[in-house]
Amino acid sequence: MKGGQIMNTNVLRNLSYGVYVISTLDGTRPTGCIANSVMQITSSPVTVALSMNHDNFTNSCIRNTGKFAVSILSIESNPTLIGTFGFQSGKNVDKFAKIPYETKEGLPIISDSCGYMVFKVIGETETSSHTIFLGELVDGDIYGETEAMTYSYYHKVIKGTSPKNAPTYIPEEDKPEQSNAKKEIWKCTVCGYEYDGDIPFEDLPESYECPICGQPKSVFEKI
Amino acid sequence: MKGGQIMNTNVLRNLSYGVYVISTLDGTRPTGCIANSVMQITSSPVTVALSMNHDNFTNSCIRNTGKFAVSILSIESNPTLIGTFGFQSGKNVDKFAKIPYETKEGLPIISDSCGYMVFKVIGETETSSHTIFLGELVDGDIYGETEAMTYSYYHKVIKGTSPKNAPTYIPEEDKPEQSNAKKEIWKCTVCGYEYDGDIPFEDLPESYECPICGQPKSVFEKI
Repeated sequence: MKGGQIMNTNVLRNLSYGVYVISTLDGTRPTGCIANSVMQITSSPVTVALSMNHDNFTNSCIRNTGKFAVSILSIESNPTLIGTFGFQSGKNVDKFAKIPYETKEGLPIISDSCGYMVFKVIGETETSSHTIFLGELVDGDIYGETEAMTYSYYHKVIKGTSPKNAPTYIPEEDKPEQSNAKKEIWKCTVCGYEYDGDIPFEDLPESYECPICGQPKSVFEKI
Repeated sequence: MKGGQIMNTNVLRNLSYGVYVISTLDGTRPTGCIANSVMQITSSPVTVALSMNHDNFTNSCIRNTGKFAVSILSIESNPTLIGTFGFQSGKNVDKFAKIPYETKEGLPIISDSCGYMVFKVIGETETSSHTIFLGELVDGDIYGETEAMTYSYYHKVIKGTSPKNAPTYIPEEDKPEQSNAKKEIWKCTVCGYEYDGDIPFEDLPESYECPICGQPKSVFEKI
C-alpha cells in the first residue's frame, strides 16, 4: 500500500478451497458446520490445520471433545447439505436430524460425501476471530470416485444462475415462452441463492423451497 | 483405527488446493517456490496461513525478510513455472532469471498469474516438518479474469496423460499412423511428468525438454 494505493482484496477469491462438513459432538449429540479452510500440514504423522470462527458453535464443541471429523463434499453431494450445515447454528438445531450419517471414532460422518477423516486436536493457535486447530489423523476413508466439490464450483455451478440441481417439480412443458421483458431475480435472504428461472417467482408454488438452504418461499426478496 | 483397522490416507487427496508461487528475498535476490497450502484465516485484518517445509530454502528466507508474496497461478499460466519453482532449490538456482516478474512491496510477483498478494509475517507455528506462517495482507490485486489453477487441475489436465500444453513443435502431419502396439510411456525422473504422445519417445528431437520442468530428454525413463 505504498504511496496510499488501495489494495484489491477481491484477489482473495482466487484462492482455492474445498467444501467440507466439520462435525463433532455437543456432549453426546452430533453437530457440525460447513468450512472451507482445511489444509494438510505434515505427512508423518498426518496433520491438518482447520480454521474455525470463534462465534461458531462447533468451535466450542471441538474444544470440549478434543476431536473433529471432516466430510468432503463431492460435486454430486446434495447441495441442501450446505444449507443445513452452513446457514443455521447447531446450538438451536439438530442438524443431523434428517441427514444420513455413519459414526467413525465416535463422530458423525456424512454418508453423501466423497470421503471422511477423523482428527484428534493436538494444537491450537488463536487469532482475533478464528481458532486454527491442528489435528492428527486417526481414521479416514474414500467414498466412491466422485470429484471433490471446490468452493469455486459451489459458487459458479450450484449457487450460480444455472443451478445443477434446479427444482425438479417444474415440468419442461409448463415453461412459459421467452419474453423480452427483463427477467426478475429473487434472492434467498438466508443463504444468498438467486432464483432467475423461466417461471416468474410469484408463480412458483407456495411449497417452493430454496434449493440450497431449504428455507420457504417467504424468505426470498426481489433484487 | 479401532480394532486394528487400517485407515485410508489416500482420502487426503480429496482436499482441494490451489497452485501458488510463494516468493520472497534471499538478501536482495528474488527467490521462491511452489506451494499449495495457503488459506485465509481472518478478514479484519486480512490474514492467511501458509504451510512451508523446514527443508525448503524459501522457509529460511521468509524468516529473514519477515514477508512473503503469493502469486496465484491460473489455468492459463505457463506450466513450466511449476517446473522452475517446484522442482529445484532456490539456494543453487536463480529461479527468476528467465521469468517475467514485477516488484510489489519489494517482493517479486509472477506476471503470468491471475493475481498476487503480499503479506508481512505476524506469527509462526512450528510442527515437526513444517512452519505455519501467519501473514497479514499489505498489498494485492487481480490480473485478468482467468480461473485459478487447482491442484486437481494440475494433476489431471497438465501433468496427466492429456497435457493441455503439449510440445507444439510436433506438426500434425508428422504423426505416425496408429498401430496396435501398446504405447510406451516415458516418465520425467525430475517432476514425474509422463510422456505418452503419438511419436515414439526415441524419435523426439534431442532438443526435447520436459514441458513441465524443462529438464532435458536424458532425464526421462521408460516405465
